[in-house]
Amino acid sequence: MAGPEPVLAAVAAGLWARGAAGGEVAAARPGALEEEIVSEKAAEESHRQDSANLLVFILLLTLTILTIWLFKHRRARFLHETGLAMIYGVLVGVVLRYGIHVPSDVNNVTLSCQVQTSPATLLVNVSGKYYEYTLKGEISAQELNNVQDNEMLRKVTFDPEVFFNILLPPIIFYAGYSLKRRHFFRNLGSILAYAFLGTAISCLVIGSVVYGCVALMKVTGQLGGDFYFTDCLLFGAIVSATDPVTVLAIFHELQVDVELYALLFGESVLNDAVAIVLSSSIVAYQPAGDNSHTFDVTAMFKSIGIFLGIFSGSFAMGAATGVVTFTKLREFPLLETGLFFLMSWSTFLLAEACGFTGVVAVLFCGITQAHYTYNNLSTESQHRTKQLFELLNFLAENFIFSYMGLALFTFQNHVFNPTFVVGAFLAIFLGRAANIYPLSFLLNLGRRNKIGTNLQHMMMFAGLRGAMAFALAIRDTATYARQMMFSTTLLIVFFTVWVFGGGTTAMLSCLNIRVGVDADQENVVIPHCCIPPLDSPTLPCSSFFLNPLCSYLKPLLTHSGPPLTTTLPGCCGPIARCLTSPQAYENQEQLKDDDSDLILNDGDISLTYGDSTVNTDSVTSSGTSRRFVGNSSEDALDRELAFGDHELVIRGTRLVLPMDDSEPPSNVLDNARHGPA
Amino acid sequence: MAGPEPVLAAVAAGLWARGAAGGEVAAARPGALEEEIVSEKAAEESHRQDSANLLVFILLLTLTILTIWLFKHRRARFLHETGLAMIYGVLVGVVLRYGIHVPSDVNNVTLSCQVQTSPATLLVNVSGKYYEYTLKGEISAQELNNVQDNEMLRKVTFDPEVFFNILLPPIIFYAGYSLKRRHFFRNLGSILAYAFLGTAISCLVIGSVVYGCVALMKVTGQLGGDFYFTDCLLFGAIVSATDPVTVLAIFHELQVDVELYALLFGESVLNDAVAIVLSSSIVAYQPAGDNSHTFDVTAMFKSIGIFLGIFSGSFAMGAATGVVTFTKLREFPLLETGLFFLMSWSTFLLAEACGFTGVVAVLFCGITQAHYTYNNLSTESQHRTKQLFELLNFLAENFIFSYMGLALFTFQNHVFNPTFVVGAFLAIFLGRAANIYPLSFLLNLGRRNKIGTNLQHMMMFAGLRGAMAFALAIRDTATYARQMMFSTTLLIVFFTVWVFGGGTTAMLSCLNIRVGVDADQENVVIPHCCIPPLDSPTLPCSSFFLNPLCSYLKPLLTHSGPPLTTTLPGCCGPIARCLTSPQAYENQEQLKDDDSDLILNDGDISLTYGDSTVNTDSVTSSGTSRRFVGNSSEDALDRELAFGDHELVIRGTRLVLPMDDSEPPSNVLDNARHGPA
Repeated sequence: MAGPEPVLAAVAAGLWARGAAGGEVAAARPGALEEEIVSEKAAEESHRQDSANLLVFILLLTLTILTIWLFKHRRARFLHETGLAMIYGVLVGVVLRYGIHVPSDVNNVTLSCQVQTSPATLLVNVSGKYYEYTLKGEISAQELNNVQDNEMLRKVTFDPEVFFNILLPPIIFYAGYSLKRRHFFRNLGSILAYAFLGTAISCLVIGSVVYGCVALMKVTGQLGGDFYFTDCLLFGAIVSATDPVTVLAIFHELQVDVELYALLFGESVLNDAVAIVLSSSIVAYQPAGDNSHTFDVTAMFKSIGIFLGIFSGSFAMGAATGVVTFTKLREFPLLETGLFFLMSWSTFLLAEACGFTGVVAVLFCGITQAHYTYNNLSTESQHRTKQLFELLNFLAENFIFSYMGLALFTFQNHVFNPTFVVGAFLAIFLGRAANIYPLSFLLNLGRRNKIGTNLQHMMMFAGLRGAMAFALAIRDTATYARQMMFSTTLLIVFFTVWVFGGGTTAMLSCLNIRVGVDADQENVVIPHCCIPPLDSPTLPCSSFFLNPLCSYLKPLLTHSGPPLTTTLPGCCGPIARCLTSPQAYENQEQLKDDDSDLILNDGDISLTYGDSTVNTDSVTSSGTSRRFVGNSSEDALDRELAFGDHELVIRGTRLVLPMDDSEPPSNVLDNARHGPA
Repeated sequence: MAGPEPVLAAVAAGLWARGAAGGEVAAARPGALEEEIVSEKAAEESHRQDSANLLVFILLLTLTILTIWLFKHRRARFLHETGLAMIYGVLVGVVLRYGIHVPSDVNNVTLSCQVQTSPATLLVNVSGKYYEYTLKGEISAQELNNVQDNEMLRKVTFDPEVFFNILLPPIIFYAGYSLKRRHFFRNLGSILAYAFLGTAISCLVIGSVVYGCVALMKVTGQLGGDFYFTDCLLFGAIVSATDPVTVLAIFHELQVDVELYALLFGESVLNDAVAIVLSSSIVAYQPAGDNSHTFDVTAMFKSIGIFLGIFSGSFAMGAATGVVTFTKLREFPLLETGLFFLMSWSTFLLAEACGFTGVVAVLFCGITQAHYTYNNLSTESQHRTKQLFELLNFLAENFIFSYMGLALFTFQNHVFNPTFVVGAFLAIFLGRAANIYPLSFLLNLGRRNKIGTNLQHMMMFAGLRGAMAFALAIRDTATYARQMMFSTTLLIVFFTVWVFGGGTTAMLSCLNIRVGVDADQENVVIPHCCIPPLDSPTLPCSSFFLNPLCSYLKPLLTHSGPPLTTTLPGCCGPIARCLTSPQAYENQEQLKDDDSDLILNDGDISLTYGDSTVNTDSVTSSGTSRRFVGNSSEDALDRELAFGDHELVIRGTRLVLPMDDSEPPSNVLDNARHGPA
């Protein structure tokens, strides 16, 4: 095709510029001195501006932290820290958009040349010196006209990959690392159902509703560009990723019903993973030939194959890394922590390098590490890793949310279409409903302790959208459709976080959901028992073939007893000796294990996997008294669970806001907050 | 000037490319589908390669950590972890350079257009879509020829600013944060003398020696480009930055003489700051007119003014931020830690935004925060911050050193000139000697406890070059002179770290420097005493005007007693009450203060500030018995110090390598390692 006349225009200086300009100054070419000095000045100026821009974000975070502290101090729950961060972001965005006017800098040049393609790197020869340019991304045409004016705005706009490669991984990893594993595995079946089936359902529902809305817009002529069904499905996948942060923070503070907590947390963590892979496999949906965006069976099956491939690949990779990271560096906590951190990161990179989804890999890496590696860490490293990832998660989260607020005004190509927005809100409502209620009905057929209607309503209500939806939406805003998606997603996030997030406490009380449940004594002392969580009652089959596997696997992978020398037949004594860590012998007698889901009683629950139902009463009638040595509160909790519904209602009627002792000492908070505590 | 014919060549795809290519796929332009798919594939491919490259570094670090563990486990001291990291870096560098050959990718295009200047950002119009290109830096002409071949090498080459803006700050901050403040302030005078005078001297000496060497090369015609005296001075400033890491790690392990430790640590920390500012003010040396690089009095004074301005500005900024960061978020360690971290970072950014040196600001911010803010943190936050910055420092350090090893082979424009290298080694030797011996002689005139000749030799020997020299050298490698400097600096770092670092233990024993001194009981309980370190005996003048200031300042800034209500006159009671934190009342009776330099005794030392000498015997003869309540080991240490030289020799003759108990439990290690413990 014939290359049209291109335009080269110099815009704001980037961070790189400084190094290059420094090079210019150093370049001793006689006569060109003053010009060098000029560009040096310009480069330094731009570097300062970059620092100032970053400083804006840092101060934004600082402000958020201070206000969070104020809120926590005053026990204000009507607005969560993330909502707060967004508000500050919006304010700063307004200031940047309308308050500051940066004069377009002097050395703007407009050049033209023949360019057929967009290479990722350009080498430009300027009077004998070569400069390297890297492709930053596409700029929409309408943005080009006022490109001189909004330097400032474009400078504070991050490139989308930052969110996916830097900010999202710690959040997701932390979610996996701090999964409340006992209740998670107890409800694994339901959680998987919500996460996979539910997300697929809501994606389809939202997609079709939005498509209808788009068709309507096309009829009324409101549509300013192409919007295909694949785009609608993509939108469905994007906004199907629910965000646990806001609601779960409040749940944790109020110590809400553990079952509900486990269901919501597990679902929202896993459906993030599902949503990512779903969206990328929708993007990969490319029918053969030039008739794009039409239905094609082979292409669809290809997409499904891609979904399965990427998901399983990422899962396997994450799980594998989590398992192999078993450290023997117990005497050097610093090295241990460093290794732990690096392994988690390399999981992400490895998955990306192999073409899988790093975020998903990191999620399962976190779950596995919390499961196996954590047991090997020295006590100090356990604290260190927890605190490190907690901090990273905290900072990344608040940064993303405040950036969301900022993006509402600083993002250049917003496309707000009232019809589409209304349709989208309707769609996510219907999608969530189609996810929760039918699945809950089906699951309740299998569950002995039903998911009560009030819990269902709460789950319906708690379907907030957050960081993941934003990151998925901003990842690509090149076309009209994507821009409209992004703007709408932004509005959805704002609305859900502010309204639903703010209304959580009220909703809890009016739904009679009991609070004040202390379910976080994780350190169960179980004599002579090292069945790994794989063998949790949620996998009834496991006891047949997983049990022996695990009872060998765990002593091999962790320092927990009993040593293989006792479990393996005598013939393989030497191997067992060299494979068993010295700690295993000490741990033989009494294993302080964090995986409370080892407990096989809880007579009141029967367990569903898919749809199959198993009643564990027979197993558990014995041994309740024996197993709970020195763990009265755990015991109390289970008795309470067994007590049934009227008790639940009674407790539910009064919403105890723990005013006097609502701030336990930090370490207790830690134990409560983190799964592996 | 007339713009010559430029060349635009497409090289490897960058990380940004993916987003743009994603945009392409989403862009629904009929007909261009297959082309989009192609570029999408290419972008994904490049993204994978980027992840793989980063993965190489992560695995490098992992490998280093594992080997470090092995070394620590085997108590091997002949090679420090940093030296190890370099070795691995070299190996990987060799593999990347000679092992892997990446085929130059297919879609290379060569285009030409009229370019007069090198804007920081290019907008390229490709068939209706605009792509943004950011300036990455300059590429030397000789590199351009084989640009297709060494994609790989150029991809693993970081841009220099990364070191200055990302990797260096945590290292420097940690150094300041973990200054052993008691001994630091006790030797403040000597340390300042070494850091400022010494660095200036060594810069001048090295500069002139190297200049002579360069002149020789010019005569013999070995010089391939311009090399002015300012370049020589810059080189002097660059390689005058000594690196404490290697030696001090071993010192700490062997618990070497505390005075020596304090002198070396203080000097190497401060002279980093001096070297940075010195180099930037040398770069800023630009005589008027076009006769560059000639001597010009006004320009020189301008440089000196710049030095003083930048240094004092950075110092003030860092100290100010350190002071203002006093948190009352004690009940929320996470928020506290986050705030602490953000404030430290914003110090760096603020300094950069104001045109000062962020690294220097961060250094003094660390010192001040360890001094004031640290006392306000809750116990958990104290642990958290220490561990966080310890980890960041550890990772950044090992990354830089392994990158050094890598750069030896992957860096494109090495200029190794034997004459220059030999001259440089001679120069740094002479420069170090001219720094240590004369200054020690002068200082010994003032000091009562002389800096023994063996200590002087040790300081001479311990003048290693490390991360800072490397970062300064790689910051700008555009010209022939800079490239030669960089290559030589690299060699110097390798040599000093491997040879001097490895020989430390042997040197200690053959210099009869005593080891096994336990000087890390920092928690001195001092009843009724809250004089801040500013008022340490190293500042004799301070007792006149600083003392009252501090005794008001510290209760105001920290939670330490006595409350202002007791110290201020009755008239300002209300103000005092609202300014005094509740903790101050509790701390009134007995203040657990980490600043051991509060102690005014140690009869055996008199203190020098600049050259003035003050004998503190009179002050300290009283109260030794009273002040050291419940701190016997501290007492023991000081008696030992008082014991004098023969005792020192006796202990020095046998180098006790603590084999049996050389690995104290981690928390003790922490207490020992960190200044504020």
